[in-house]
Amino acid sequence: MKKNVLIIGAGGVGQVVAHKCAQHNDVLGDIHIASRTFAKCEAIIQSVHEKKSLKTAGKLVAHALDALNVEKTAELIRATNSQIVINVGSAFLNMSILTACIRTGAAYIDTAIHEDPLKICETPPWYGNYEWKRREECAKAGVTAVLGAGFDPGVVNAYAALARDEHFDRIDSIDIIDVNAGDHGRYFATNFDPEINFREFTGQVWSWQKGKWTSNKMFEVRKDWDLPVVGTRTTYMTGHDEIHSLSQNLGVPDIRFWMGFGERYITVFTVLKNLGLLSEQPIRTAEGQEVVPLKVVKAVLPDPSSLAPDYTGKTCIGDLVKGVKNGKPREVFIYNVSDHAEAYGEVGSQAISYTAGVPPVAAALLIAEGTWDVGRMANVEELPPQPFLGLLGRMGLPSRIKDEAGDRPLTFDTDGGGVAAKVAVRRAAAG
Amino acid sequence: MKKNVLIIGAGGVGQVVAHKCAQHNDVLGDIHIASRTFAKCEAIIQSVHEKKSLKTAGKLVAHALDALNVEKTAELIRATNSQIVINVGSAFLNMSILTACIRTGAAYIDTAIHEDPLKICETPPWYGNYEWKRREECAKAGVTAVLGAGFDPGVVNAYAALARDEHFDRIDSIDIIDVNAGDHGRYFATNFDPEINFREFTGQVWSWQKGKWTSNKMFEVRKDWDLPVVGTRTTYMTGHDEIHSLSQNLGVPDIRFWMGFGERYITVFTVLKNLGLLSEQPIRTAEGQEVVPLKVVKAVLPDPSSLAPDYTGKTCIGDLVKGVKNGKPREVFIYNVSDHAEAYGEVGSQAISYTAGVPPVAAALLIAEGTWDVGRMANVEELPPQPFLGLLGRMGLPSRIKDEAGDRPLTFDTDGGGVAAKVAVRRAAAG
Repeated sequence: MKKNVLIIGAGGVGQVVAHKCAQHNDVLGDIHIASRTFAKCEAIIQSVHEKKSLKTAGKLVAHALDALNVEKTAELIRATNSQIVINVGSAFLNMSILTACIRTGAAYIDTAIHEDPLKICETPPWYGNYEWKRREECAKAGVTAVLGAGFDPGVVNAYAALARDEHFDRIDSIDIIDVNAGDHGRYFATNFDPEINFREFTGQVWSWQKGKWTSNKMFEVRKDWDLPVVGTRTTYMTGHDEIHSLSQNLGVPDIRFWMGFGERYITVFTVLKNLGLLSEQPIRTAEGQEVVPLKVVKAVLPDPSSLAPDYTGKTCIGDLVKGVKNGKPREVFIYNVSDHAEAYGEVGSQAISYTAGVPPVAAALLIAEGTWDVGRMANVEELPPQPFLGLLGRMGLPSRIKDEAGDRPLTFDTDGGGVAAKVAVRRAAAG
Repeated sequence: MKKNVLIIGAGGVGQVVAHKCAQHNDVLGDIHIASRTFAKCEAIIQSVHEKKSLKTAGKLVAHALDALNVEKTAELIRATNSQIVINVGSAFLNMSILTACIRTGAAYIDTAIHEDPLKICETPPWYGNYEWKRREECAKAGVTAVLGAGFDPGVVNAYAALARDEHFDRIDSIDIIDVNAGDHGRYFATNFDPEINFREFTGQVWSWQKGKWTSNKMFEVRKDWDLPVVGTRTTYMTGHDEIHSLSQNLGVPDIRFWMGFGERYITVFTVLKNLGLLSEQPIRTAEGQEVVPLKVVKAVLPDPSSLAPDYTGKTCIGDLVKGVKNGKPREVFIYNVSDHAEAYGEVGSQAISYTAGVPPVAAALLIAEGTWDVGRMANVEELPPQPFLGLLGRMGLPSRIKDEAGDRPLTFDTDGGGVAAKVAVRRAAAG
């Protein structure tokens, strides 16, 4: 049993994580939230109190922290007696926070891959450049580090593991499809940190095809999908974290990621990229000031968390898996549909933040009760998917499956046992 | 007789001005060129020597100058014995350079209206906000100050004055049309300082219609024109300097400005404007750095002077004038067509810089010989247009007229006299 959670990062996802930790503080214990900007932590804590998200009376404390500073981060972990750290801060912080966890013995959870601010789209597999170099260190220290435990990466990795365990004897391909059919009513905005968002698309598009890395340009490969609830949507093949672990862990020859984009996004992205405004490399103005263009673009765009109140529509994210079961070819789509307005009503964030923020709290609960407290570094597909997906179903992210037998909710045998039984079915109770 | 010229500004237009002054240094005397960036002045001087533009052996000297500093500017005018100052620097410098001219008695010539860095699109007439407030001061000091003596404003004002003097008894409307049908081969670039270029279009579009100021939005009013040489082109009604003086000086009820834009320009402009990247107001990045977005956009765009070597195609700029002559309605188009590659061959700049840079040198020659040395502040339409247009014809910017009698070169009675006779017909001699 582990308890007391330190959340690092106070953006839209941090807001969801804080609410969800609060809803389960009977299991998780004290909740601390730390960010470079103290006021953002305070605003989140105020929101948790306003929505009465705390299940039982308990600690909920804000901290100012520069998480690039390993010593300060380790100090805060020790001072707060936190045994679990949920990192939903900037992607540049992973390695320093992981180091602090290894030093203190705290379990580590993140939702996106580590990035070097000055490098775009490094050599695949991306996890090999930073995270996996620390595997032995984690194992030696007995530190649980669950990598990429958001929705994508995260839940989609669990879908892939579930497909492997229960639905296929052999998997030929996995297409991960991420579509936001929502509308925020603005001319243009990214749904999470613009800096990280644009960085995803400015380099090569790496996919895993015929058992090897394949490179394309962004917006080069287009595919339309007919999806449940949100209908037919246009997507483009995109590089994404989960391809870099699934390709190494599952032995599946074709793994691709498809992101939905509207015309407006493509126009804005194309203009900014062609002008050089998405560059992470500093330039000098005529007045002699040194500036990183991407950081200026980030500064002029709407704060993603400001979109939530007006956001309508739904997201659909899932794995289309093709392969063979009992000698017969089959095709299965395992997915979740989330609603922006419902997410905002519950935790004050839109569905993109909601789908990214609920899973690391489910991971924290599974570490707290021991099921996922494996004492080593693991990507989500290396851990049992059933308890994770079962728990998520009761925490607001139910999964469905569509196959030759139709479209139906996914249910799990493990639903009756472990931490799952203790988890309040918040939405069902409210509804 | 005035002589010795100080050129302030070392961009693409400054390059043209330097070459053209050099070609006429027998009349103009010493030539000095000053800019914040000394190396840019040196590069221009090297280009003048390479192309052997100096007509006779004479002084051609580079200076570093912060022209916002009135005292330093006045010192340089005195130290160089310059009796004529050609200001082709940033539009933010006009008032400080004009002040230095008034203090020293030097004649002042500029090619664009004064702008306050923090204000966009002020109340019309724009000249009333800065320049015209100094009219009495100029008259009292006997200082000649010719405002807006580029192509537009400048030559197009002379076209309007010529139409009034020679072609109409009553003018009903003047439509100034500025089309660049050239191709620089880049994804996107502005043809002069991006900061000034974008500032032209981010505010309201002021036009003079039915004898009063009318406001529209940018890209709201579109009109296609069938033009000589460049063919049918799409333009949009745009705010522009010359409307603000012609409307006050000519008594014409309708004066509009039409700028040609391609689809690419409109897309890029729309994205940048909607995102807030064209703002002249400082913003703060997440890291706490204070930055003016427009200055960052300027820094990532190609330096307009770098476009010249690959530029192909032509510009067409002119005045479509409608009115009555001898009781009959008539319509006249007075215009110039310039070629990017030809301009580059002669002076190392493209045609946008060429058309803007040759006229202030013609104005300097007319001040040197006395014709335009009026000892007061004047916009171009307040000065005799014939000697100016005649001189320009022999300096590389010939004008044509298209009316009910056809399309033919404009010629002037004054061609035989004054400074005009002394001016080498550079192009004709070369051709």
